[in-house]
Amino acid sequence: MKKYSKSKINRIKRGQNRAVYEVEKINTILDAGFIGFVSYTYEGSAISLPMAYGRNGNKIYLHGSQANRMLLSLLEGGKMSMTVMHLDALVLARSGLHHSVNYRSATLFGSVRKIEKATEKEAALHCFMEQMMKGRWDGIRPMKPEELSRTLVVEMAIETASAKIRDVGVNDDSEDYNLPIWAGLVPLKQVALAPISDENLRENIPIPSHVLEYYKLHQ
Amino acid sequence: MKKYSKSKINRIKRGQNRAVYEVEKINTILDAGFIGFVSYTYEGSAISLPMAYGRNGNKIYLHGSQANRMLLSLLEGGKMSMTVMHLDALVLARSGLHHSVNYRSATLFGSVRKIEKATEKEAALHCFMEQMMKGRWDGIRPMKPEELSRTLVVEMAIETASAKIRDVGVNDDSEDYNLPIWAGLVPLKQVALAPISDENLRENIPIPSHVLEYYKLHQ
Repeated sequence: MKKYSKSKINRIKRGQNRAVYEVEKINTILDAGFIGFVSYTYEGSAISLPMAYGRNGNKIYLHGSQANRMLLSLLEGGKMSMTVMHLDALVLARSGLHHSVNYRSATLFGSVRKIEKATEKEAALHCFMEQMMKGRWDGIRPMKPEELSRTLVVEMAIETASAKIRDVGVNDDSEDYNLPIWAGLVPLKQVALAPISDENLRENIPIPSHVLEYYKLHQ
Repeated sequence: MKKYSKSKINRIKRGQNRAVYEVEKINTILDAGFIGFVSYTYEGSAISLPMAYGRNGNKIYLHGSQANRMLLSLLEGGKMSMTVMHLDALVLARSGLHHSVNYRSATLFGSVRKIEKATEKEAALHCFMEQMMKGRWDGIRPMKPEELSRTLVVEMAIETASAKIRDVGVNDDSEDYNLPIWAGLVPLKQVALAPISDENLRENIPIPSHVLEYYKLHQ
């Protein structure tokens, strides 16, 4: 299985038993969501902001307005880092120290470029939309050329990455197992509720199958 | 209502109609979760990592091992920024450009200090644990002095902050409302599943009420 090579920037130091470098496993974490925390430096401060993204191979696509402060700053610096995390359970131990969470978290590092060509921009936005909801792109009005030119699209080429996964039960100190204290997991899950049609919807437009499918998959 | 004053670092530039500066509203966003994305600079790169936190007034508490690279780097720099986000709905418009999400996101900026005194450390960890699950602290084994000394506790004093909230329906271009395209929201929610007792649990320990209460509150 292809792996990202370990370097100073992506090597997991704490909790090495949870460290993941396999490209496929990291892609699985990325594809389980569409919101990442993108980091940049502003006035000497590191800041991270949530951004929707799309992934295609080793490319990550972000977009925003042509005046987006973060995207412009990333383009100026030429590199970027993004972290994606899914929270899977509270791990409730017998002692405070062994409380934890089960999670899947991936941090990517790479270089960025601005996408200028309209056809490439459209392909990136297609990828972006499909990451949010499979099948949505074909169900909506095609983009207009002026919409494409108003949109700033940034492509990140993933150069290295690492992930951490915790997916096990409680791990207490051996002498604590005899304590009369409850320990266990509380699984957490992000679910979709029933779709709500826009109040200004034209009559007789049913909820399309790609939306119902998403709803069904996120129960 | 008390507000954070706007400065270069926390002023919302894009989507000002969604901007929030009220301290109470920002605290409500912080208290709806316990995982934040903490940013720091490593080898010239801005990185953000998910961290569990506790809030007490304008203080945020983080902890880790005494060798935690990020915490040590924050202490060295003396300042920190953290972003917390809750995803509330997919906003599915008739055009690609108006697709969005409903969300609550807060970004904090402040100074950090290491907590050294054992009693202060314990108070910070109590706050931290209660942020994850109300009532848990009283249900577990008290911390040992050696556990306290193995743990690095960092306090952030929030100096300024801002938030963005989108909580409305679809907002399409007026000429698109006549298109035969479905538009609407798909609400998203993080829920708890039924608690799973540790397989090594002593016999006859029922799931405590603070755990059942959490489960009930997160349906």
